Amino acid sequence: MLIVGELINTSRKRVQLAMEKRDVAFIQDLAQNQIDAGADYLDVNCGTMVFNELEIMAWLVQAIQEKVHVPLCIDSPNPRAVEMGLSLARYGKPMINSITAEKQHFEILLPLVARFKAKVVALCMDDCGVPGTANERVLIARRLVALLADAGLPEDDIYIDPMVKPISTGDQAGADVLDTVKAIKAEFPSTHCICGLSNVSFGLPNRKVLNQVFMVQPMLSGMDSYIRDPSDNKMMGFLYASLAILGKDEFCMEYLSAHRHGLYKG
Amino acid sequence: MLIVGELINTSRKRVQLAMEKRDVAFIQDLAQNQIDAGADYLDVNCGTMVFNELEIMAWLVQAIQEKVHVPLCIDSPNPRAVEMGLSLARYGKPMINSITAEKQHFEILLPLVARFKAKVVALCMDDCGVPGTANERVLIARRLVALLADAGLPEDDIYIDPMVKPISTGDQAGADVLDTVKAIKAEFPSTHCICGLSNVSFGLPNRKVLNQVFMVQPMLSGMDSYIRDPSDNKMMGFLYASLAILGKDEFCMEYLSAHRHGLYKG
Repeated sequence: MLIVGELINTSRKRVQLAMEKRDVAFIQDLAQNQIDAGADYLDVNCGTMVFNELEIMAWLVQAIQEKVHVPLCIDSPNPRAVEMGLSLARYGKPMINSITAEKQHFEILLPLVARFKAKVVALCMDDCGVPGTANERVLIARRLVALLADAGLPEDDIYIDPMVKPISTGDQAGADVLDTVKAIKAEFPSTHCICGLSNVSFGLPNRKVLNQVFMVQPMLSGMDSYIRDPSDNKMMGFLYASLAILGKDEFCMEYLSAHRHGLYKG
Repeated sequence: MLIVGELINTSRKRVQLAMEKRDVAFIQDLAQNQIDAGADYLDVNCGTMVFNELEIMAWLVQAIQEKVHVPLCIDSPNPRAVEMGLSLARYGKPMINSITAEKQHFEILLPLVARFKAKVVALCMDDCGVPGTANERVLIARRLVALLADAGLPEDDIYIDPMVKPISTGDQAGADVLDTVKAIKAEFPSTHCICGLSNVSFGLPNRKVLNQVFMVQPMLSGMDSYIRDPSDNKMMGFLYASLAILGKDEFCMEYLSAHRHGLYKG
């Protein structure tokens, strides 16, 4: 199970304010707190800073690494910002968030993948957008895995995101993701499946419950990585409970440890 | 999805007290409240009343049916109490909780199944007890389905309970249930799988979270019936959220209706 902490993102108001003041302590605390809460990677996203994204990316990566020595997930639609983040990331194997099968975007990012030997979040979308069915998603995943393998990337470094649509816009949207994950893990067992969750519940009431269910059900199909807020105790509690139920937690040790660390009090 | 409301059980102190006073209103309210909360069947269990179980069973069944006109699930290890309950059950198709592959017990109960054309909860256990592996459970289920089919019972009336053991006693206990359900639904797609949940978390802290996860994960494998407390809003909320995620709720109508009826406020 791999958790990418998602909180260092300038689309969050408090992060944006901290950035404007170059508030090193705020960013470093946010990094440390996510690691303490169980994050394995930290996502770094300053995509809202369109006028000086490269400078901000450099500043963020350096500020974070002064405090915590963990691998980073460089998150930007801008290949130059991705390159800036990767070139400064010093600990472990960095991750790129994200690559897609959109031809032009893929061709620009692929050399960076190869050069930095990075892990990659690969989104199941291409120049036609996000597909409507599980089958079409699997076709895109197959293309992405083949292209990334050709570039020398081992399957273990590929994190396929099936792309979650809201079930309010089509009641098979959740089932499509489950089917996609199952098919991908059957065909490429060494790859990983990753996703953000909250999109599934968009437009419906009581989103929290839907998000909780949607975190634990795909684990049965092979979902093994999440980009999320690790400080959300309740969700992290569900995650450890789920691993225990699935028999992926020997003697329930992780579950019991999570309990001792207060993960079920949220 | 079939929900058997479990609250009319004399092992619960308040029910036992109500029975001792022959408090019709209490029992009828308990019946009505469970139906209002979404129960399809009502379990009737007075197994703790060892000296007058037959009399109490008759009294309970009649008291309940004066108020609500729903099918009952007659729950007793005593075949004579089962017979008493079935003979008085007037609405819909009654259910027997439960039959096992224990030879003597099975032979006594089978004629009742045939005579009352009842639905049956069939437990995956035999004279050697509850098996340790999913494979052994499936072998027992296969035997039970064959014997019940020979007696004329359609698969649609068979509710197989894989028998949940606590994950604290063996960390594959949850995975075994998931595997059992998957195998049974693959081999006998018209049968149902049912279970009580709470045993899974016995001996561990924060049982509620484990129980919640263990309700929604087996639905992916085909679990479609639960014996539970329908007045537990939170759990019922998870159940509807799960159906919506799995694409078994057209236009999310059930989920939205559950929301309007306050199921997410628990």
